[in-house]
Amino acid sequence: MSARSCLMIVLAAGEGTRMRSEIPKVLHEIGGRSMVGHVVAAARGAGADRLAVVVGPGMTAVAEAVHKAAPGAAIFTQTERRGTAHAVLVARAAIEQGAAEVLVLFGDTPLVTPETLDRVRCTLEAGADVAVLGFRIDRPTGYGRLLTEGDRLVAIREEKDATPAERAVTFCNSGIMGFRGATMLSLLDAIGNANAKGEFYLTDAVEIASRRGLRVAAVEGDGREVLGVNDRAQLAECERLFQERRRRAALAAGVTLIAPETVFFAIDTALGRDVVVEPNVVFGPGVVVEAGARIRAFSHLEGARVAEGAVIGPYARLRPGAEIGREAHIGNFVEVKNAVIGDGAKANHLSYIGDARVGAKTNIGAGTITCNYDGYGKYKTEIGAGAFVGSNSSLVAPVRIGDGAYVGSGSVVTHDVPADALAVGRGRQEIREGWARAFRERMKAEKAKR
Amino acid sequence: MSARSCLMIVLAAGEGTRMRSEIPKVLHEIGGRSMVGHVVAAARGAGADRLAVVVGPGMTAVAEAVHKAAPGAAIFTQTERRGTAHAVLVARAAIEQGAAEVLVLFGDTPLVTPETLDRVRCTLEAGADVAVLGFRIDRPTGYGRLLTEGDRLVAIREEKDATPAERAVTFCNSGIMGFRGATMLSLLDAIGNANAKGEFYLTDAVEIASRRGLRVAAVEGDGREVLGVNDRAQLAECERLFQERRRRAALAAGVTLIAPETVFFAIDTALGRDVVVEPNVVFGPGVVVEAGARIRAFSHLEGARVAEGAVIGPYARLRPGAEIGREAHIGNFVEVKNAVIGDGAKANHLSYIGDARVGAKTNIGAGTITCNYDGYGKYKTEIGAGAFVGSNSSLVAPVRIGDGAYVGSGSVVTHDVPADALAVGRGRQEIREGWARAFRERMKAEKAKR
Amino acid sequence: MSARSCLMIVLAAGEGTRMRSEIPKVLHEIGGRSMVGHVVAAARGAGADRLAVVVGPGMTAVAEAVHKAAPGAAIFTQTERRGTAHAVLVARAAIEQGAAEVLVLFGDTPLVTPETLDRVRCTLEAGADVAVLGFRIDRPTGYGRLLTEGDRLVAIREEKDATPAERAVTFCNSGIMGFRGATMLSLLDAIGNANAKGEFYLTDAVEIASRRGLRVAAVEGDGREVLGVNDRAQLAECERLFQERRRRAALAAGVTLIAPETVFFAIDTALGRDVVVEPNVVFGPGVVVEAGARIRAFSHLEGARVAEGAVIGPYARLRPGAEIGREAHIGNFVEVKNAVIGDGAKANHLSYIGDARVGAKTNIGAGTITCNYDGYGKYKTEIGAGAFVGSNSSLVAPVRIGDGAYVGSGSVVTHDVPADALAVGRGRQEIREGWARAFRERMKAEKAKR
Repeated sequence: MSARSCLMIVLAAGEGTRMRSEIPKVLHEIGGRSMVGHVVAAARGAGADRLAVVVGPGMTAVAEAVHKAAPGAAIFTQTERRGTAHAVLVARAAIEQGAAEVLVLFGDTPLVTPETLDRVRCTLEAGADVAVLGFRIDRPTGYGRLLTEGDRLVAIREEKDATPAERAVTFCNSGIMGFRGATMLSLLDAIGNANAKGEFYLTDAVEIASRRGLRVAAVEGDGREVLGVNDRAQLAECERLFQERRRRAALAAGVTLIAPETVFFAIDTALGRDVVVEPNVVFGPGVVVEAGARIRAFSHLEGARVAEGAVIGPYARLRPGAEIGREAHIGNFVEVKNAVIGDGAKANHLSYIGDARVGAKTNIGAGTITCNYDGYGKYKTEIGAGAFVGSNSSLVAPVRIGDGAYVGSGSVVTHDVPADALAVGRGRQEIREGWARAFRERMKAEKAKR
Repeated sequence: MSARSCLMIVLAAGEGTRMRSEIPKVLHEIGGRSMVGHVVAAARGAGADRLAVVVGPGMTAVAEAVHKAAPGAAIFTQTERRGTAHAVLVARAAIEQGAAEVLVLFGDTPLVTPETLDRVRCTLEAGADVAVLGFRIDRPTGYGRLLTEGDRLVAIREEKDATPAERAVTFCNSGIMGFRGATMLSLLDAIGNANAKGEFYLTDAVEIASRRGLRVAAVEGDGREVLGVNDRAQLAECERLFQERRRRAALAAGVTLIAPETVFFAIDTALGRDVVVEPNVVFGPGVVVEAGARIRAFSHLEGARVAEGAVIGPYARLRPGAEIGREAHIGNFVEVKNAVIGDGAKANHLSYIGDARVGAKTNIGAGTITCNYDGYGKYKTEIGAGAFVGSNSSLVAPVRIGDGAYVGSGSVVTHDVPADALAVGRGRQEIREGWARAFRERMKAEKAKR
Repeated sequence: MSARSCLMIVLAAGEGTRMRSEIPKVLHEIGGRSMVGHVVAAARGAGADRLAVVVGPGMTAVAEAVHKAAPGAAIFTQTERRGTAHAVLVARAAIEQGAAEVLVLFGDTPLVTPETLDRVRCTLEAGADVAVLGFRIDRPTGYGRLLTEGDRLVAIREEKDATPAERAVTFCNSGIMGFRGATMLSLLDAIGNANAKGEFYLTDAVEIASRRGLRVAAVEGDGREVLGVNDRAQLAECERLFQERRRRAALAAGVTLIAPETVFFAIDTALGRDVVVEPNVVFGPGVVVEAGARIRAFSHLEGARVAEGAVIGPYARLRPGAEIGREAHIGNFVEVKNAVIGDGAKANHLSYIGDARVGAKTNIGAGTITCNYDGYGKYKTEIGAGAFVGSNSSLVAPVRIGDGAYVGSGSVVTHDVPADALAVGRGRQEIREGWARAFRERMKAEKAKR
């Protein structure tokens, strides 16, 4: 990666009316992260020293999202919508601070990679004054075409102005551009708005630079990286491309995805070698699964860590703070939240384990509930190793159950249970002979009366 | 839409042997509605004044389905299978009642839209005596080709009779036809059965009309609308096209579908702006979700209403009569049936809430069950606002829990709980020190003996 | 199928480094069965009398998997990796025992069918000395091309050695070959290793046989059957093709799959006519579903039998030994394991039914748990016919509940319940007026102090 100073400007002021949303366009999410968050992360990944983000009026939520991802980013507000060149010049102060290279990115093009941005930078370092990122596409209709002679970019031709021969060109403009810092402002200031919409177009810089004899280069990127999002269908398409990228990476790393298209990843999902993921699994952010663990069908994990050889699901939900030990089993209709489950422990059926610690090899019976909330605070359940919690028990936190202790099925445990002790807390069973027969007869008689 | 009188005849007598089913073909479902139900709905949507449906012998279930969708529809039974023209003439009485236009539809072509049928009507109103709905397809092999001169339909050529030039034609016959009412019967009565199968083909009307100098027109429709269903693979393909149509509509209306291909809609699913639907969600009939609500992964909704800002799932099941208030949360492994959940209320884990009313901001603990059924009747649970129901409680209906009341975890509530009171109904916990150790030793000894 | 003696040799020694796995490549699974298990099953299905499997050093797990699928198979260990011909000759002893025909298969080509192998055999029986299975593919780059004159295979040309005309050939080598037993060893012994890698290639047998004037034939198979697996992406692709094959077969047999691509089958899933499978269903091994049953969305079945007209799910999990009676209902978040559920019985919500027998028409209330495990043994719950188990009950096994008996909601049942009796075992409800208000005030005060 380059060591030269680099400023990246992210244009994020678009209203996105075609999204039909109350939310600014660039805050819509891909893989659980806002689009502008993806672009900012790519910019940082490509080694941007400074970041400037141009937002629309009142887009404080966008500014917040940017600062969360990149605390030092400068926010500029574009109060009038007068074209891309105008938007870039809203960040004039950032450009004037000086940088060897300046890249212009778009907040609604979330899949661009650091590697691709780095190639634009390298082209500038190799001597280009302006570099435009293009991509090849079979059906280019609607895109601006990049007209090249060798490496040199001669012009960007809009569809409506193109000759038939130019229309046949399949090399298209992504919008992403790079500039040598020293000449950038001079080029941008020369852009006029003598066009149908009266807007200042950044792409005009290409022609101006060419006229001045500067070096303008085209860089070829992958079309799947530069898909822009203008409506919800394109948002879904970007999500699909993002997921495909993540699935391919997981397969290449030695993970078995039985049906890759049914597994959904977050940006940071980390799966070890020989992890098997069955169909229909959703990974939220912050999941780490170690080697050889199995994630069964219909499971949902977020903020969880799963150790080697553990089996999760089917229908398991791991929430933030779930830490599942080696060879432990979390089974169907079981939710684990902020709880450490020891090695070889089992909670296989219909349970809620929250704010808890469960010792190694302990067995949590079906239907067990940790009652961790009293309407005000959350309290902790601590269960030792080798314990046995009978089915349908309620463990009223704060409470401790000692190593090797035993809780009878159906118990409500309100006090600590010493190690190796039995706790039982349930009503005594009574029988009324013949009651059910009498009840049936009464119900039938009532029904007959109606 | 046209104001002229219109009869639509739906042919639904096919046995559908290739379906390998005990159920008449047209009763197989797309989006939870029978195929014939879709066709009848499209006919009504296109403004048909009268409907006639031709069924096979003994197909009373088809007649019932038709009457449910269109109470006034006339049912005709085709006792012999002698071709499409014969089937239409089974409804001769309906035609003889007179109508400006008569359209012939097929009960196994469920995706045709009112808009397309209306275009056939418009063609008739514009002066055509016969109008045939065609579609373009890249690989036309097997379809009858529509041979046209300008707007005029010259002939329908079956594959086996086509010249090589005619086989290259990609404009194909959908089977759907419209007739000017005044000339229709005269055309149909002229159709003969001098062909290999000895059947009367409705398509022969085109040639007869042409010979008589009548105006015959072709109308171009969308091939995805006229796919006919003859086997289960085609049924699945129709379902896929139906779902795609619904998904595109939701995206266009400002709904985020993170993975559109994993979301399944019913015919009447209504989702508000900025609703987010996570992967793997199934909507049964009768669902309304208001703006900004989030439907999390693996949720299943039918007959439910979800208010603004509510969060449903993951793994939530809403059944008919579920009404979820604003900002309310229904969480994992929770089933809600015939229950009103107040604004801001929460039932986040492993609960069954049936035949109930839950007040605003009330918290329903994990594992709570409303015991609403005694084997004969269903009884109601009423919970006030700001109440707290401890985990793993059983609420034995009919029962009322007052505003601000508190139910201790693991309680069985059999009597009403006054407002602001505490109710506890559970066994007292007993401890037997050392019991678990002794039990383990006994079990090990027994195991050793074996 | 042929009656002549046939040996099939399965090459399974590959290390599969591109899988990035601790597990030998051929043990990775398709449809829940190891790849080598599929190949062995296809060989048996095609009537192989004898099987020889060539494994790598230390691959005892592969040998075990083979013996499980085909107890009589001979295992040979290839200690050096010197090419496919060398691998086949590791099984020389098996070839020397004599067989009319010898087929060479690959342990990482799991989708080959008995029908295709039978066609290779038939080609040998019809007089060929060598037969090579080929397939057509649109983009043949990378595959060896089969150069033919009529039926006769002239040569197998590797990509790098091919002329432009030969590269245009789209008929490619699958690797699967058959030999007349009498001449096979003579051919193989003539194969040399004078090539770049110094390996002995089985495909060289074609040229040698041609030179000797023997008859060499090409057999055309389906490219989807001979996809080899070298990495996890190809494993996923094979799984996809396997699932598509199973889905097509189910549709053809009269099963409705609403969204076929979301239903996952095992090798032996058996679904009756008019079974409806909703979206997102996973079938593990050993499932039989009888006619007219409905498997609702998000269900997971393995080792289970479902009788006519039963309704399973949504979100039902049936585990091995679940036998669901006619018209019975198993509902959401219900797990059934090793349990017979009687005709018309219902367990509709949030229950665990394990090691149990439930009588006809019995109703199991929401949240019922059979407490079948005490940490050492599993015990049985027997519930009669026409019984009613109230919600949130715990049935502590071993226990019997008689015909027509009634268990009060929230009970812990520890002793047998006679027929027609009522059993109640729960704490008595107590009320403390005003407690909740006082609690709230105390909590608020504490909060204020902090």
